[in-house]
Amino acid sequence: MRSAYNELMAEALVVLSGGQDSTTCLFWALQQFDKVKAITFDYGQRHRIELDSARKIAELANVRHRILAIDTFSALGGNSLTTSDIPVPTDEEQDGLPSTFVPGRNLIFLTFAAAYAYQRNIQDLVTGVCETDYSGYPDCRQNTVEALQLAINLGMESHLRIHTPLMWLNKAQTVILAKEVGALDAMAWTHTCYNGQFPPCGDCAACVIRKRGFEEAGFEDPLLRRAAKSV
Amino acid sequence: MRSAYNELMAEALVVLSGGQDSTTCLFWALQQFDKVKAITFDYGQRHRIELDSARKIAELANVRHRILAIDTFSALGGNSLTTSDIPVPTDEEQDGLPSTFVPGRNLIFLTFAAAYAYQRNIQDLVTGVCETDYSGYPDCRQNTVEALQLAINLGMESHLRIHTPLMWLNKAQTVILAKEVGALDAMAWTHTCYNGQFPPCGDCAACVIRKRGFEEAGFEDPLLRRAAKSV
Repeated sequence: MRSAYNELMAEALVVLSGGQDSTTCLFWALQQFDKVKAITFDYGQRHRIELDSARKIAELANVRHRILAIDTFSALGGNSLTTSDIPVPTDEEQDGLPSTFVPGRNLIFLTFAAAYAYQRNIQDLVTGVCETDYSGYPDCRQNTVEALQLAINLGMESHLRIHTPLMWLNKAQTVILAKEVGALDAMAWTHTCYNGQFPPCGDCAACVIRKRGFEEAGFEDPLLRRAAKSV
Repeated sequence: MRSAYNELMAEALVVLSGGQDSTTCLFWALQQFDKVKAITFDYGQRHRIELDSARKIAELANVRHRILAIDTFSALGGNSLTTSDIPVPTDEEQDGLPSTFVPGRNLIFLTFAAAYAYQRNIQDLVTGVCETDYSGYPDCRQNTVEALQLAINLGMESHLRIHTPLMWLNKAQTVILAKEVGALDAMAWTHTCYNGQFPPCGDCAACVIRKRGFEEAGFEDPLLRRAAKSV
């Protein structure tokens, strides 16, 4: 997967949530760059288990990992991922933006990640956002990321590239990519369930999408194997 | 100053730092919009006196005011406005970016302000950034703000307008605008000094620029009048 132009692309920073997509990106980056660091945002997410997943996966991938706290979303309030009295939707039927939407969450994550990269002279940022399967989060789409990359580079006088290897893949293709880059074993430690459960609830929108992806790719989900063992 | 098109522009959110420029913008907004709110970011700035200024000015302007904490810049570190062991530059001679630069600080402020506005159905954001006198902060420039407005509107599926009434004014013109919009008395409570002093130190780059602006505009600085009384 490495090519000559990668010679110049020495170090990358991966935004690692502890989920399936960002874990795939982390292992993708390990193949693309000489050095890889990971950053995770502790923004008061209800499924705190994600942070443990991120730590474990960074350890498995043997990369330096920083968890950076962002308390401001909780102060802003108004969404079900950071406010515990709003119920999580149980299926994919949602009107407009999902109730798990934090306005601009991904804009903030990428801008803080860019600031962190800037301070370390890292010019490549990798994020697992995906338009094909963007689940109603408009700040995960290609045009948003392009506009933000421009705003960041103008605003920081930097030359940051934001890599989005999953942007146009569906979930099955992401699973196949995970296999190709050697991320499949680490999938056992990823967290996806919107209800924050291990073993995963299997019923929330996130669990359903993940399950379908593995089925279509034709692989067993290592997370479910680990879950079966733990019971 | 109001015109017919303002009929549709009912409510604005002003990013209020407690400084001279944002205070001018607050009073400008009061002339332009039916309703005005103000938001101030407590990002661990060394000159905490700014927060008191912002509170006092919002009170004088009789607008609802929210102070929102952003702890992440302190965690990122590496700049003299949030890290107390880095000396503040004493004059305007600086190589490249000033040491007071927090990479992407203004991108983050505007994005959080946009999220706050989004939740309240406010479509107009006002900020005192200024390209003429941008003091080396690239995220205060017109092209950065334009790119960010696009990123925000794509990322939040919103129709936010970011107003920058001071963008092309020099400091003297800003003082004249402050007079026109009735902000001059409130200037007595603004904070500018990089060293966080009241009475202002008079020697730091910020104090020098402010002093020159009032001199060129031909007005006495109400802050200095208040300072003289306080001694």
